[in-house]
Amino acid sequence: MQVAMIQGKILPIEELEPIYLDRGTFFGDGVYEVVRSYNGKIFALEKHLQRFARSLAAIQIAGVEIDQIRARVQKAFDAAGIANAKIYFHVTRGSGLRDHVGNAGSKPNFFLTVTELPDATQEKTKGIAVSTHPDWRWKRCDIKSLNLLANVLARQDAARKDCAEAVFVDDMGAITEGAGSAFFAIFGQTLQTAPLTANILPSITRKYVLTAGKNIGLEAVEKSLTPEQARSADELFIAVTTKDVVPVVRFNDEIIGDGKPGKYTKLLIQEFQKFVI
Amino acid sequence: MQVAMIQGKILPIEELEPIYLDRGTFFGDGVYEVVRSYNGKIFALEKHLQRFARSLAAIQIAGVEIDQIRARVQKAFDAAGIANAKIYFHVTRGSGLRDHVGNAGSKPNFFLTVTELPDATQEKTKGIAVSTHPDWRWKRCDIKSLNLLANVLARQDAARKDCAEAVFVDDMGAITEGAGSAFFAIFGQTLQTAPLTANILPSITRKYVLTAGKNIGLEAVEKSLTPEQARSADELFIAVTTKDVVPVVRFNDEIIGDGKPGKYTKLLIQEFQKFVI
Repeated sequence: MQVAMIQGKILPIEELEPIYLDRGTFFGDGVYEVVRSYNGKIFALEKHLQRFARSLAAIQIAGVEIDQIRARVQKAFDAAGIANAKIYFHVTRGSGLRDHVGNAGSKPNFFLTVTELPDATQEKTKGIAVSTHPDWRWKRCDIKSLNLLANVLARQDAARKDCAEAVFVDDMGAITEGAGSAFFAIFGQTLQTAPLTANILPSITRKYVLTAGKNIGLEAVEKSLTPEQARSADELFIAVTTKDVVPVVRFNDEIIGDGKPGKYTKLLIQEFQKFVI
Repeated sequence: MQVAMIQGKILPIEELEPIYLDRGTFFGDGVYEVVRSYNGKIFALEKHLQRFARSLAAIQIAGVEIDQIRARVQKAFDAAGIANAKIYFHVTRGSGLRDHVGNAGSKPNFFLTVTELPDATQEKTKGIAVSTHPDWRWKRCDIKSLNLLANVLARQDAARKDCAEAVFVDDMGAITEGAGSAFFAIFGQTLQTAPLTANILPSITRKYVLTAGKNIGLEAVEKSLTPEQARSADELFIAVTTKDVVPVVRFNDEIIGDGKPGKYTKLLIQEFQKFVI
Protein backbone atom coordinates (compact mmCIF):
# COMPACT_ATOMS: atom_id res chain seq x y z
CA MET A 1 0.00 0.00 0.00
CA GLN A 2 1.42 3.37 -1.00
CA VAL A 3 1.38 5.65 2.02
CA ALA A 4 2.01 9.24 3.01
CA MET A 5 3.04 10.66 6.35
CA ILE A 6 2.20 14.14 7.61
CA GLN A 7 4.32 15.02 10.63
CA GLY A 8 4.04 11.59 12.38
CA LYS A 9 0.69 10.48 11.00
CA ILE A 10 0.45 7.77 8.32
CA LEU A 11 -2.38 7.62 5.79
CA PRO A 12 -3.01 5.87 2.46
CA ILE A 13 -1.66 8.06 -0.31
CA GLU A 14 -5.09 8.20 -2.00
CA GLU A 15 -6.49 9.96 1.04
CA LEU A 16 -4.08 12.89 0.77
CA GLU A 17 -5.62 16.21 -0.08
CA PRO A 18 -4.13 17.43 -3.41
CA ILE A 19 -2.44 20.40 -1.70
CA TYR A 20 0.03 17.94 -0.13
CA LEU A 21 1.13 16.88 -3.60
CA ASP A 22 1.39 20.42 -4.95
CA ARG A 23 4.29 20.84 -7.36
CA GLY A 24 4.75 24.23 -5.73
CA THR A 25 6.16 22.47 -2.67
CA PHE A 26 8.01 19.65 -4.41
CA PHE A 27 9.78 21.87 -6.95
CA GLY A 28 8.73 25.49 -6.55
CA ASP A 29 7.06 24.82 -9.88
CA GLY A 30 4.95 27.94 -10.00
CA VAL A 31 4.93 31.71 -10.35
CA TYR A 32 3.51 34.51 -8.25
CA GLU A 33 2.70 38.19 -8.00
CA VAL A 34 2.22 40.70 -5.19
CA VAL A 35 -0.01 43.70 -5.78
CA ARG A 36 -1.23 46.29 -3.34
CA SER A 37 -4.09 48.72 -2.96
CA TYR A 38 -3.90 52.36 -1.94
CA ASN A 39 -7.03 53.68 -0.27
CA GLY A 40 -9.36 51.04 -1.61
CA LYS A 41 -7.99 50.88 -5.13
CA ILE A 42 -5.67 48.20 -6.49
CA PHE A 43 -2.54 49.76 -8.00
CA ALA A 44 -1.09 48.73 -11.37
CA LEU A 45 -3.02 45.47 -11.54
CA GLU A 46 -2.83 45.21 -15.32
CA LYS A 47 0.95 45.54 -15.30
CA HIS A 48 1.20 42.80 -12.68
CA LEU A 49 -1.16 40.57 -14.65
CA GLN A 50 0.93 41.11 -17.79
CA ARG A 51 4.07 40.12 -15.93
CA PHE A 52 2.26 37.13 -14.43
CA ALA A 53 1.26 35.99 -17.93
CA ARG A 54 4.92 36.29 -19.01
CA SER A 55 6.06 34.25 -16.01
CA LEU A 56 3.49 31.53 -16.72
CA ALA A 57 4.57 31.40 -20.37
CA ALA A 58 8.26 31.31 -19.43
CA ILE A 59 7.78 28.12 -17.43
CA GLN A 60 5.12 26.84 -19.81
CA ILE A 61 2.20 26.53 -17.45
CA ALA A 62 -0.81 26.44 -19.75
CA GLY A 63 -4.52 26.64 -19.14
CA VAL A 64 -4.57 29.75 -16.95
CA GLU A 65 -6.91 32.53 -18.04
CA ILE A 66 -5.67 35.98 -17.05
CA ASP A 67 -9.25 37.24 -17.15
CA GLN A 68 -10.13 34.70 -14.51
CA ILE A 69 -7.14 35.71 -12.38
CA ARG A 70 -8.16 39.37 -12.63
CA ALA A 71 -11.73 38.53 -11.60
CA ARG A 72 -10.52 36.45 -8.66
CA VAL A 73 -8.15 39.18 -7.44
CA GLN A 74 -10.94 41.75 -7.59
CA LYS A 75 -13.45 39.43 -5.93
CA ALA A 76 -11.14 38.55 -3.05
CA PHE A 77 -10.10 42.18 -2.61
CA ASP A 78 -13.76 43.26 -2.47
CA ALA A 79 -14.55 40.50 0.02
CA ALA A 80 -11.68 41.54 2.28
CA GLY A 81 -12.65 45.21 2.35
CA ILE A 82 -9.14 46.31 3.33
CA ALA A 83 -8.27 49.80 2.03
CA ASN A 84 -4.49 49.32 2.06
CA ALA A 85 -4.12 45.67 1.28
CA LYS A 86 -1.37 43.36 0.15
CA ILE A 87 -2.60 40.83 -2.39
CA TYR A 88 -0.44 37.80 -2.98
CA PHE A 89 -1.28 35.10 -5.52
CA HIS A 90 0.44 32.18 -7.11
CA VAL A 91 -0.26 29.49 -9.65
CA THR A 92 1.54 26.16 -9.56
CA ARG A 93 1.61 23.51 -12.29
CA GLY A 94 -0.75 21.38 -10.23
CA SER A 95 -0.78 18.40 -7.89
CA GLY A 96 0.38 14.85 -8.44
CA LEU A 97 2.85 12.21 -7.33
CA ARG A 98 6.31 13.74 -7.45
CA ASP A 99 7.69 13.65 -11.00
CA HIS A 100 9.97 16.31 -12.46
CA VAL A 101 8.49 16.20 -15.94
CA GLY A 102 4.97 16.78 -14.78
CA ASN A 103 1.73 15.01 -14.33
CA ALA A 104 -0.40 14.46 -17.41
CA GLY A 105 -3.77 16.03 -16.95
CA SER A 106 -2.91 17.90 -13.76
CA LYS A 107 -4.57 21.27 -13.50
CA PRO A 108 -2.84 24.41 -12.21
CA ASN A 109 -3.49 25.33 -8.59
CA PHE A 110 -4.40 28.91 -7.70
CA PHE A 111 -3.89 30.42 -4.25
CA LEU A 112 -4.33 33.99 -3.05
CA THR A 113 -4.29 35.97 0.17
CA VAL A 114 -5.44 39.50 0.96
CA THR A 115 -3.82 40.84 4.11
CA GLU A 116 -3.36 44.17 5.86
CA LEU A 117 -0.23 45.98 4.72
CA PRO A 118 2.10 46.69 7.61
CA ASP A 119 2.55 50.42 8.09
CA ALA A 120 5.82 51.55 6.47
CA THR A 121 5.81 55.11 7.82
CA GLN A 122 8.77 54.59 10.10
CA GLU A 123 10.89 52.94 7.40
CA LYS A 124 10.05 55.76 5.02
CA THR A 125 10.79 58.58 7.42
CA LYS A 126 13.85 57.12 9.16
CA GLY A 127 15.23 54.97 6.37
CA ILE A 128 16.51 51.43 6.62
CA ALA A 129 19.83 49.60 6.76
CA VAL A 130 20.77 47.04 4.11
CA SER A 131 23.53 44.45 3.95
CA THR A 132 25.08 42.70 0.97
CA HIS A 133 24.86 38.98 0.28
CA PRO A 134 26.24 36.85 -2.57
CA ASP A 135 23.62 36.43 -5.28
CA TRP A 136 23.00 32.68 -5.08
CA ARG A 137 19.79 32.79 -7.09
CA TRP A 138 19.16 30.87 -10.27
CA LYS A 139 19.86 32.34 -13.72
CA ARG A 140 16.26 33.22 -14.59
CA CYS A 141 15.38 35.85 -12.02
CA ASP A 142 13.40 37.57 -14.76
CA ILE A 143 10.78 34.90 -14.01
CA LYS A 144 8.88 35.62 -10.78
CA SER A 145 8.98 32.02 -9.58
CA LEU A 146 8.48 30.27 -6.27
CA ASN A 147 12.18 29.33 -6.11
CA LEU A 148 13.08 31.87 -3.44
CA LEU A 149 15.33 30.05 -1.00
CA ALA A 150 18.31 32.25 -1.90
CA ASN A 151 16.15 35.29 -1.13
CA VAL A 152 15.08 33.80 2.21
CA LEU A 153 18.66 33.00 3.23
CA ALA A 154 19.86 36.47 2.25
CA ARG A 155 17.02 38.16 4.11
CA GLN A 156 17.67 36.05 7.21
CA ASP A 157 21.33 36.99 7.07
CA ALA A 158 20.32 40.65 6.80
CA ALA A 159 17.97 40.32 9.78
CA ARG A 160 20.81 38.93 11.88
CA LYS A 161 22.73 42.09 11.02
CA ASP A 162 19.77 44.29 11.95
CA CYS A 163 19.17 45.11 8.33
CA ALA A 164 15.76 45.28 6.70
CA GLU A 165 16.88 44.16 3.26
CA ALA A 166 19.66 42.16 1.64
CA VAL A 167 21.29 43.47 -1.52
CA PHE A 168 22.56 40.80 -3.90
CA VAL A 169 26.08 41.00 -5.32
CA ASP A 170 26.87 38.68 -8.22
CA ASP A 171 30.08 36.81 -9.06
CA MET A 172 31.36 39.77 -11.03
CA GLY A 173 31.01 42.04 -8.00
CA ALA A 174 27.97 43.88 -9.35
CA ILE A 175 24.81 44.62 -7.39
CA THR A 176 21.83 43.00 -9.08
CA GLU A 177 18.88 43.92 -6.83
CA GLY A 178 17.48 43.47 -3.35
CA ALA A 179 16.16 40.14 -2.07
CA GLY A 180 12.67 41.59 -2.38
CA SER A 181 13.16 44.96 -4.02
CA ALA A 182 14.86 46.96 -6.75
CA PHE A 183 17.95 48.92 -5.68
CA PHE A 184 18.76 52.53 -6.62
CA ALA A 185 21.55 55.02 -6.03
CA ILE A 186 21.61 58.77 -6.56
CA PHE A 187 24.83 60.59 -7.45
CA GLY A 188 24.29 64.32 -7.90
CA GLN A 189 21.25 64.44 -10.14
CA THR A 190 21.74 60.98 -11.59
CA LEU A 191 19.47 58.08 -10.67
CA GLN A 192 21.26 54.78 -11.17
CA THR A 193 19.99 51.20 -11.12
CA ALA A 194 21.03 47.94 -12.73
CA PRO A 195 19.80 47.25 -16.28
CA LEU A 196 17.16 44.56 -16.80
CA THR A 197 18.78 41.22 -17.62
CA ALA A 198 17.88 37.58 -17.03
CA ASN A 199 19.27 38.02 -13.53
CA ILE A 200 16.89 40.79 -12.52
CA LEU A 201 13.15 40.87 -12.03
CA PRO A 202 11.49 43.40 -14.32
CA SER A 203 10.18 45.32 -11.33
CA ILE A 204 7.02 47.32 -11.92
CA THR A 205 7.81 49.71 -9.08
CA ARG A 206 11.25 50.25 -10.65
CA LYS A 207 9.53 51.48 -13.80
CA TYR A 208 7.37 53.93 -11.87
CA VAL A 209 10.42 55.14 -9.97
CA LEU A 210 12.29 55.83 -13.21
CA THR A 211 9.32 57.88 -14.39
CA ALA A 212 9.10 59.69 -11.06
CA GLY A 213 12.83 60.41 -11.30
CA LYS A 214 12.38 61.93 -14.73
CA ASN A 215 9.50 64.03 -13.40
CA ILE A 216 11.71 65.57 -10.73
CA GLY A 217 14.58 66.18 -13.13
CA LEU A 218 16.89 63.26 -12.41
CA GLU A 219 18.82 61.65 -15.22
CA ALA A 220 18.36 57.87 -15.32
CA VAL A 221 21.36 55.59 -15.82
CA GLU A 222 20.73 51.86 -16.13
CA LYS A 223 24.11 50.48 -15.21
CA SER A 224 25.22 48.07 -12.52
CA LEU A 225 26.77 49.40 -9.33
CA THR A 226 29.45 47.81 -7.21
CA PRO A 227 29.14 47.86 -3.42
CA GLU A 228 32.06 50.32 -3.38
CA GLN A 229 30.15 52.70 -5.61
CA ALA A 230 26.91 52.22 -3.68
CA ARG A 231 28.43 53.13 -0.36
CA SER A 232 29.77 56.36 -1.77
CA ALA A 233 26.42 57.39 -3.26
CA ASP A 234 24.72 60.61 -2.17
CA GLU A 235 21.50 58.70 -1.59
CA LEU A 236 20.33 55.09 -1.74
CA PHE A 237 16.87 53.60 -1.71
CA ILE A 238 14.93 50.45 -2.50
CA ALA A 239 11.68 50.16 -4.41
CA VAL A 240 9.11 47.47 -3.78
CA THR A 241 5.40 47.09 -4.53
CA THR A 242 4.30 46.92 -0.92
CA LYS A 243 6.17 50.06 0.23
CA ASP A 244 7.06 51.85 -3.02
CA VAL A 245 10.17 53.96 -2.20
CA VAL A 246 12.12 53.32 1.03
CA PRO A 247 15.28 55.32 1.81
CA VAL A 248 18.45 53.39 2.66
CA VAL A 249 20.57 55.19 5.26
CA ARG A 250 23.11 52.48 6.00
CA PHE A 251 24.85 50.16 3.53
CA ASN A 252 26.68 47.41 5.43
CA ASP A 253 28.71 49.46 7.95
CA GLU A 254 28.67 52.63 5.92
CA ILE A 255 26.37 55.56 6.75
CA ILE A 256 24.88 57.04 3.58
CA GLY A 257 24.86 60.83 3.32
CA ASP A 258 24.07 62.24 6.74
CA GLY A 259 22.28 59.08 7.86
CA LYS A 260 18.88 60.47 7.02
CA PRO A 261 16.68 59.99 3.94
CA GLY A 262 18.08 62.06 1.07
CA LYS A 263 16.32 65.02 -0.49
CA TYR A 264 15.71 63.41 -3.89
CA THR A 265 14.54 60.19 -2.26
CA LYS A 266 12.00 62.20 -0.27
CA LEU A 267 10.90 63.94 -3.47
CA LEU A 268 10.53 60.55 -5.16
CA ILE A 269 8.33 59.30 -2.31
CA GLN A 270 6.10 62.33 -2.83
CA GLU A 271 6.18 62.02 -6.60
CA PHE A 272 5.25 58.36 -6.42
CA GLN A 273 2.09 59.24 -4.53
CA LYS A 274 0.85 61.07 -7.63
CA PHE A 275 0.67 57.72 -9.46
CA VAL A 276 -1.52 56.11 -6.85
CA ILE A 277 -4.24 58.70 -6.49
CA MET B 1 -11.15 40.84 7.11
CA GLN B 2 -8.02 39.10 5.87
CA VAL B 3 -9.00 36.43 3.37
CA ALA B 4 -7.56 33.59 1.36
CA MET B 5 -8.75 32.11 -1.91
CA ILE B 6 -8.21 28.52 -3.01
CA GLN B 7 -8.96 28.14 -6.70
CA GLY B 8 -12.13 30.31 -6.75
CA LYS B 9 -13.24 29.82 -3.15
CA ILE B 10 -12.86 32.58 -0.56
CA LEU B 11 -12.39 31.90 3.14
CA PRO B 12 -11.21 33.85 6.19
CA ILE B 13 -7.45 33.48 6.44
CA GLU B 14 -7.74 32.03 9.95
CA GLU B 15 -9.65 29.07 8.55
CA LEU B 16 -6.82 28.02 6.23
CA GLU B 17 -5.18 24.73 7.03
CA PRO B 18 -1.48 25.40 7.79
CA ILE B 19 -0.37 23.43 4.71
CA TYR B 20 -1.65 26.30 2.55
CA LEU B 21 0.80 28.63 4.28
CA ASP B 22 3.73 26.23 4.03
CA ARG B 23 7.02 28.04 3.38
CA GLY B 24 7.83 25.11 1.13
CA THR B 25 5.34 26.47 -1.39
CA PHE B 26 5.97 30.19 -0.88
CA PHE B 27 9.76 29.96 -1.08
CA GLY B 28 10.90 26.36 -1.53
CA ASP B 29 12.18 26.91 2.00
CA GLY B 30 12.94 23.29 2.78
CA VAL B 31 15.16 20.32 2.05
CA TYR B 32 14.45 16.76 0.99
CA GLU B 33 15.82 13.28 0.45
CA VAL B 34 14.90 10.28 -1.66
CA VAL B 35 15.87 6.81 -0.45
CA ARG B 36 14.91 3.44 -1.81
CA SER B 37 14.60 -0.11 -0.64
CA TYR B 38 15.84 -3.22 -2.36
CA ASN B 39 13.90 -6.36 -1.53
CA GLY B 40 12.43 -5.11 1.68
CA LYS B 41 15.53 -3.35 3.01
CA ILE B 42 16.16 0.39 2.92
CA PHE B 43 19.48 1.13 1.23
CA ALA B 44 22.03 3.60 2.63
CA LEU B 45 19.56 5.27 4.97
CA GLU B 46 22.25 6.55 7.33
CA LYS B 47 24.12 8.27 4.51
CA HIS B 48 20.92 9.95 3.36
CA LEU B 49 20.11 11.04 6.91
CA GLN B 50 23.59 12.50 7.29
CA ARG B 51 23.17 14.48 4.08
CA PHE B 52 19.71 15.56 5.18
CA ALA B 53 21.17 16.87 8.44
CA ARG B 54 23.78 18.80 6.45
CA SER B 55 21.07 20.30 4.22
CA LEU B 56 19.00 21.34 7.24
CA ALA B 57 22.04 22.96 8.84
CA ALA B 58 23.00 24.73 5.61
CA ILE B 59 19.68 26.55 5.49
CA GLN B 60 19.50 26.81 9.27
CA ILE B 61 16.31 24.93 9.94
CA ALA B 62 16.55 24.02 13.60
CA GLY B 63 14.52 21.75 15.83
CA VAL B 64 14.53 18.65 13.66
CA GLU B 65 15.70 15.44 15.30
CA ILE B 66 17.37 13.04 12.89
CA ASP B 67 16.48 10.16 15.20
CA GLN B 68 12.84 11.07 14.79
CA ILE B 69 13.20 11.28 11.00
CA ARG B 70 14.82 7.84 10.96
CA ALA B 71 12.02 6.38 13.07
CA ARG B 72 9.36 7.94 10.85
CA VAL B 73 10.98 6.67 7.66
CA GLN B 74 11.17 3.16 9.09
CA LYS B 75 7.61 3.28 10.43
CA ALA B 76 6.13 4.47 7.13
CA PHE B 77 8.19 1.95 5.17
CA ASP B 78 6.99 -0.87 7.42
CA ALA B 79 3.39 0.30 7.11
CA ALA B 80 3.62 0.38 3.31
CA GLY B 81 5.05 -3.13 3.01
CA ILE B 82 6.52 -2.43 -0.43
CA ALA B 83 9.67 -4.46 -1.13
CA ASN B 84 11.11 -2.10 -3.73
CA ALA B 85 9.95 1.26 -2.53
CA LYS B 86 10.80 4.86 -3.21
CA ILE B 87 10.76 6.91 -0.02
CA TYR B 88 10.58 10.66 -0.43
CA PHE B 89 10.61 13.06 2.51
CA HIS B 90 11.02 16.75 3.07
CA VAL B 91 11.13 19.22 5.92
CA THR B 92 10.13 22.85 5.42
CA ARG B 93 10.74 25.73 7.81
CA GLY B 94 7.06 25.69 8.74
CA SER B 95 3.81 27.49 8.02
CA GLY B 96 2.88 31.13 8.45
CA LEU B 97 1.84 34.27 6.64
CA ARG B 98 4.30 34.88 3.83
CA ASP B 99 7.43 36.61 5.14
CA HIS B 100 10.92 36.00 3.76
CA VAL B 101 12.68 36.23 7.09
CA GLY B 102 10.54 33.62 8.74
CA ASN B 103 7.82 33.24 11.24
CA ALA B 104 8.77 33.37 14.88
CA GLY B 105 7.73 30.22 16.62
CA SER B 106 6.80 28.32 13.45
CA LYS B 107 7.62 24.63 13.62
CA PRO B 108 9.12 22.67 10.74
CA ASN B 109 6.70 20.64 8.62
CA PHE B 110 7.51 17.03 7.79
CA PHE B 111 6.05 15.19 4.82
CA LEU B 112 6.86 11.74 3.42
CA THR B 113 5.59 9.32 0.80
CA VAL B 114 6.34 5.66 0.21
CA THR B 115 5.52 4.60 -3.34
CA GLU B 116 6.21 1.68 -5.67
CA LEU B 117 9.40 2.16 -7.63
CA PRO B 118 8.76 2.04 -11.37
CA ASP B 119 10.55 -0.89 -12.99
CA ALA B 120 13.82 0.33 -14.57
CA THR B 121 14.69 -2.92 -16.36
CA GLN B 122 14.13 -1.55 -19.82
CA GLU B 123 16.18 1.60 -19.20
CA LYS B 124 18.99 -0.52 -17.80
CA THR B 125 19.07 -3.05 -20.59
CA LYS B 126 18.45 -0.72 -23.53
CA GLY B 127 19.96 2.48 -22.16
CA ILE B 128 18.51 5.97 -22.32
CA ALA B 129 18.98 9.15 -24.33
CA VAL B 130 19.99 12.41 -22.63
CA SER B 131 20.00 16.00 -23.85
CA THR B 132 21.94 19.00 -22.59
CA HIS B 133 20.40 22.09 -21.02
CA PRO B 134 21.96 25.27 -19.63
CA ASP B 135 22.49 24.94 -15.89
CA TRP B 136 20.11 27.60 -14.60
CA ARG B 137 20.15 26.35 -11.03
CA TRP B 138 21.15 28.41 -8.02
CA LYS B 139 24.70 28.48 -6.68
CA ARG B 140 24.16 26.10 -3.77
CA CYS B 141 23.28 22.84 -5.47
CA ASP B 142 25.26 21.11 -2.73
CA ILE B 143 22.13 21.72 -0.62
CA LYS B 144 19.31 19.32 -1.52
CA SER B 145 16.61 21.98 -1.43
CA LEU B 146 13.08 22.29 -2.77
CA ASN B 147 14.17 24.96 -5.29
CA LEU B 148 13.98 22.67 -8.30
CA LEU B 149 12.29 24.68 -11.02
CA ALA B 150 15.45 24.68 -13.16
CA ASN B 151 15.50 20.89 -12.89
CA VAL B 152 11.83 20.68 -13.87
CA LEU B 153 12.31 22.94 -16.90
CA ALA B 154 15.38 21.00 -18.05
CA ARG B 155 13.62 17.66 -17.63
CA GLN B 156 10.59 18.92 -19.55
CA ASP B 157 12.87 20.12 -22.34
CA ALA B 158 14.50 16.67 -22.39
CA ALA B 159 11.11 14.94 -22.53
CA ARG B 160 10.15 17.02 -25.56
CA LYS B 161 13.30 15.69 -27.22
CA ASP B 162 12.43 12.09 -26.26
CA CYS B 163 15.21 12.06 -23.71
CA ALA B 164 14.91 10.54 -20.25
CA GLU B 165 17.32 12.93 -18.54
CA ALA B 166 18.70 16.43 -18.97
CA VAL B 167 22.42 17.04 -18.44
CA PHE B 168 23.31 20.48 -17.13
CA VAL B 169 26.05 22.52 -18.81
CA ASP B 170 27.30 25.55 -16.90
CA ASP B 171 28.37 28.97 -18.19
CA MET B 172 31.94 27.74 -18.61
CA GLY B 173 30.79 24.94 -20.89
CA ALA B 174 31.32 22.20 -18.32
CA ILE B 175 28.84 19.44 -17.50
CA THR B 176 27.84 19.63 -13.86
CA GLU B 177 25.36 16.76 -13.42
CA GLY B 178 21.98 15.50 -14.55
CA ALA B 179 18.73 17.18 -13.55
CA GLY B 180 18.11 14.27 -11.22
CA SER B 181 21.28 12.21 -11.38
CA ALA B 182 25.07 12.17 -11.37
CA PHE B 183 26.73 11.92 -14.79
CA PHE B 184 29.66 9.66 -15.71
CA ALA B 185 31.81 8.94 -18.73
CA ILE B 186 34.18 6.07 -19.40
CA PHE B 187 37.24 6.51 -21.61
CA GLY B 188 39.26 3.30 -21.91
CA GLN B 189 39.58 2.18 -18.30
CA THR B 190 39.02 5.62 -16.83
CA LEU B 191 35.81 6.55 -15.04
CA GLN B 192 35.26 10.30 -15.14
CA THR B 193 32.77 12.53 -13.34
CA ALA B 194 32.68 16.15 -12.19
CA PRO B 195 34.33 16.98 -8.85
CA LEU B 196 32.11 17.92 -5.92
CA THR B 197 31.68 21.68 -5.70
CA ALA B 198 28.93 24.03 -4.50
CA ASN B 199 27.26 23.49 -7.86
CA ILE B 200 26.92 19.72 -7.51
CA LEU B 201 24.90 17.59 -5.16
CA PRO B 202 27.12 15.26 -3.15
CA SER B 203 25.35 12.24 -4.62
CA ILE B 204 25.39 9.11 -2.49
CA THR B 205 24.96 6.86 -5.51
CA ARG B 206 27.94 8.63 -7.12
CA LYS B 207 30.07 7.53 -4.17
CA TYR B 208 28.98 3.91 -4.48
CA VAL B 209 29.62 4.03 -8.22
CA LEU B 210 33.18 5.29 -7.65
CA THR B 211 33.73 2.37 -5.27
CA ALA B 212 32.19 -0.07 -7.75
CA GLY B 213 34.45 1.36 -10.46
CA LYS B 214 37.49 0.75 -8.31
CA ASN B 215 36.32 -2.79 -7.64
CA ILE B 216 36.21 -3.58 -11.37
CA GLY B 217 39.59 -1.96 -12.04
CA LEU B 218 38.58 1.44 -13.40
CA GLU B 219 40.66 4.48 -12.56
CA ALA B 220 38.56 7.34 -11.20
CA VAL B 221 39.08 10.89 -12.43
CA GLU B 222 37.07 13.67 -10.81
CA LYS B 223 37.22 16.32 -13.49
CA SER B 224 34.53 18.18 -15.38
CA LEU B 225 33.64 17.09 -18.90
CA THR B 226 32.51 19.23 -21.79
CA PRO B 227 29.65 18.06 -24.01
CA GLU B 228 32.24 17.57 -26.79
CA GLN B 229 34.22 15.23 -24.57
CA ALA B 230 31.10 13.44 -23.38
CA ARG B 231 29.86 12.62 -26.84
CA SER B 232 33.19 11.05 -27.74
CA ALA B 233 33.27 8.87 -24.64
CA ASP B 234 33.40 5.08 -24.95
CA GLU B 235 30.51 4.80 -22.50
CA LEU B 236 28.20 7.14 -20.63
CA PHE B 237 25.83 6.54 -17.78
CA ILE B 238 23.87 8.29 -15.07
CA ALA B 239 23.60 7.31 -11.40
CA VAL B 240 20.56 7.97 -9.28
CA THR B 241 19.22 6.56 -6.03
CA THR B 242 16.01 5.19 -7.53
CA LYS B 243 17.68 3.30 -10.41
CA ASP B 244 21.36 3.16 -9.41
CA VAL B 245 23.28 2.86 -12.74
CA VAL B 246 21.51 3.57 -16.06
CA PRO B 247 23.45 3.40 -19.35
CA VAL B 248 23.28 6.41 -21.68
CA VAL B 249 23.32 5.39 -25.34
CA ARG B 250 22.53 8.70 -26.95
CA PHE B 251 23.87 12.15 -26.01
CA ASN B 252 21.92 14.85 -27.86
CA ASP B 253 22.11 13.60 -31.45
CA GLU B 254 25.22 11.52 -30.94
CA ILE B 255 25.07 7.73 -30.58
CA ILE B 256 27.46 6.57 -27.84
CA GLY B 257 29.64 3.54 -28.65
CA ASP B 258 27.55 1.11 -30.66
CA GLY B 259 24.28 2.46 -29.24
CA LYS B 260 24.03 -0.26 -26.62
CA PRO B 261 24.99 -0.21 -22.95
CA GLY B 262 28.77 -0.41 -22.65
CA LYS B 263 30.64 -3.33 -21.12
CA TYR B 264 31.96 -1.47 -18.08
CA THR B 265 28.58 0.12 -17.46
CA LYS B 266 27.04 -3.35 -17.42
CA LEU B 267 29.75 -4.53 -15.03
CA LEU B 268 29.03 -1.51 -12.80
CA ILE B 269 25.33 -2.39 -12.72
CA GLN B 270 26.27 -5.90 -11.57
CA GLU B 271 28.86 -4.63 -9.11
CA PHE B 272 26.38 -2.16 -7.61
CA GLN B 273 24.05 -5.04 -6.78
CA LYS B 274 26.67 -6.37 -4.37
CA PHE B 275 26.16 -3.28 -2.18
CA VAL B 276 22.42 -3.78 -1.87
CA ILE B 277 22.27 -7.42 -0.81
